[in-house]
Amino acid sequence: MEKFEVTILGCGSALPTTRHFPTSQVLNIREKLYMIDCGEGTQIQLRRSRLKFNRLNHIFISHLHGDHCFGLIGLLSTLGMLGRTATLHVHAPAAFGTQLRSQLDFFCQGLEYDVEFHPIDTSLHTLIHEDRSVSVYSIPLKHRIACAGFLFREKPSLPHIRRDMIDFYHIPLCEINNIKNGKDWTTEEGQTVPHTRLTTPADPPRSYAYCSDTVYLPEIAELIRGTDLLFHEATFINEDAARARETFHTTALQAAQLACDSKVKQLCIGHFSARYENEAPLLAEAKTLFPNTVLAKEGLTIKI
Amino acid sequence: MEKFEVTILGCGSALPTTRHFPTSQVLNIREKLYMIDCGEGTQIQLRRSRLKFNRLNHIFISHLHGDHCFGLIGLLSTLGMLGRTATLHVHAPAAFGTQLRSQLDFFCQGLEYDVEFHPIDTSLHTLIHEDRSVSVYSIPLKHRIACAGFLFREKPSLPHIRRDMIDFYHIPLCEINNIKNGKDWTTEEGQTVPHTRLTTPADPPRSYAYCSDTVYLPEIAELIRGTDLLFHEATFINEDAARARETFHTTALQAAQLACDSKVKQLCIGHFSARYENEAPLLAEAKTLFPNTVLAKEGLTIKI
Repeated sequence: MEKFEVTILGCGSALPTTRHFPTSQVLNIREKLYMIDCGEGTQIQLRRSRLKFNRLNHIFISHLHGDHCFGLIGLLSTLGMLGRTATLHVHAPAAFGTQLRSQLDFFCQGLEYDVEFHPIDTSLHTLIHEDRSVSVYSIPLKHRIACAGFLFREKPSLPHIRRDMIDFYHIPLCEINNIKNGKDWTTEEGQTVPHTRLTTPADPPRSYAYCSDTVYLPEIAELIRGTDLLFHEATFINEDAARARETFHTTALQAAQLACDSKVKQLCIGHFSARYENEAPLLAEAKTLFPNTVLAKEGLTIKI
Repeated sequence: MEKFEVTILGCGSALPTTRHFPTSQVLNIREKLYMIDCGEGTQIQLRRSRLKFNRLNHIFISHLHGDHCFGLIGLLSTLGMLGRTATLHVHAPAAFGTQLRSQLDFFCQGLEYDVEFHPIDTSLHTLIHEDRSVSVYSIPLKHRIACAGFLFREKPSLPHIRRDMIDFYHIPLCEINNIKNGKDWTTEEGQTVPHTRLTTPADPPRSYAYCSDTVYLPEIAELIRGTDLLFHEATFINEDAARARETFHTTALQAAQLACDSKVKQLCIGHFSARYENEAPLLAEAKTLFPNTVLAKEGLTIKI
């Protein structure tokens, strides 16, 4: 099965702690990297992750609080020093365009690659990026400032070739791609072998939803229904639900409720408040409603 | 003896590695903190160091390469969230003023403390800050862009009181500060005891010089002569001296030569290139000329 996995680079929140980096994640889809948020220290964490910097072509920024974007200028600068020439695409709330350009002009003169800015309308659930491997949709969230979540839907992949049948019919290797793409095979005797006999069905396309930062929003359950993995912020424990509401954040219990309602297959919670020395109670709380929950952690990779 | 010590928060250079953070240090002088440079991740390292964020009132930025200043906006933002109200002073090459203001206006609206910007003329060796504890001078360095080093000279401290003499003459506690400040004591019998008999001499004022980034500059030996501790960049090993010259950096051997010529008491080398997996050869090289050399390392505190 081709790669579709997410690596957590940071899962803390605004205040620095000795345990967490601020928010950043990398989705590896078929060896192409898609970064989600880029808090301070992301480039250091990316180096530690051993992921390849040059496989990264798209960065999605959910909102413009520093713990989600202060690492961007450093990463862009480093990519320049590493000799990058390919365009890098930054998707972020529209207001960021001018500020990013100003920082690039000031700190990164002579950059040998282009940074293309794609403004996100955070009020819409809409397609914001598409390539051969994935479609990315925005999810309107509700935070203290404009904020979007992201839904990554893998493009359908090709069926798997049946090696035994290829050998049996002596089909040349150069035909394999045609067969995967739906062409039947005709033997020397003129017999037609349908492509479905030569393959097993493709893996079902996978999906990943990222929702951070936001107040608990039951209505997004519809948008993320059936997603294979949901990352949802759980800044607070339910005892601090009033504080969560005030600051437009979610509790671990609310994140689990959303996972139940949207029938996702797995939940990962993160964006932990600096006030918790230990996140085990947040996990325990989420599991009371949604047992298939894991805690985000720096360096954790979840295969989807 | 009152505190005068430097803590290394980061001693890597431009490219991220798994071993180092980019440059930042904190000088603790009599429990007041003075930060020198503020690379990405500085606030995380400051948290790890257990130094108190609210003791920091001055930040000195040597030059505007990202590995020396990309952590500033995050730190300033965090100080706001921590409830700071005291003015924070940022000393940096003049060009940074407008860019910093633009970032503050964009990311830190409603900050409840003032950030006062003090432009440094990097071509001058001059007093740039003075308070009751310290005088700070700029050191003109030569890098690819405008760059200043910093020389911290402790203000003279008061003599130490001799507890045995205080007891002998039954001198009340409220007189101690007067005596330290040079007032003689008159006994009930009218005998004058000179203050010098009641005290031992003050500790000699200490000094710290920070020189990074720069090509090897023999002429600064005069400016830093006799300094207690010199931090000097040693980005490269002497084998890579050509590369050092090209990029306006210094080798470990050149840093040691400067330490010899300026007769400093101790040398700390840092700002290591990402190319070296192990800095022991840089240390060995420096020690051939200047034995009292140490390698900078994240978390290292050197008492001066």
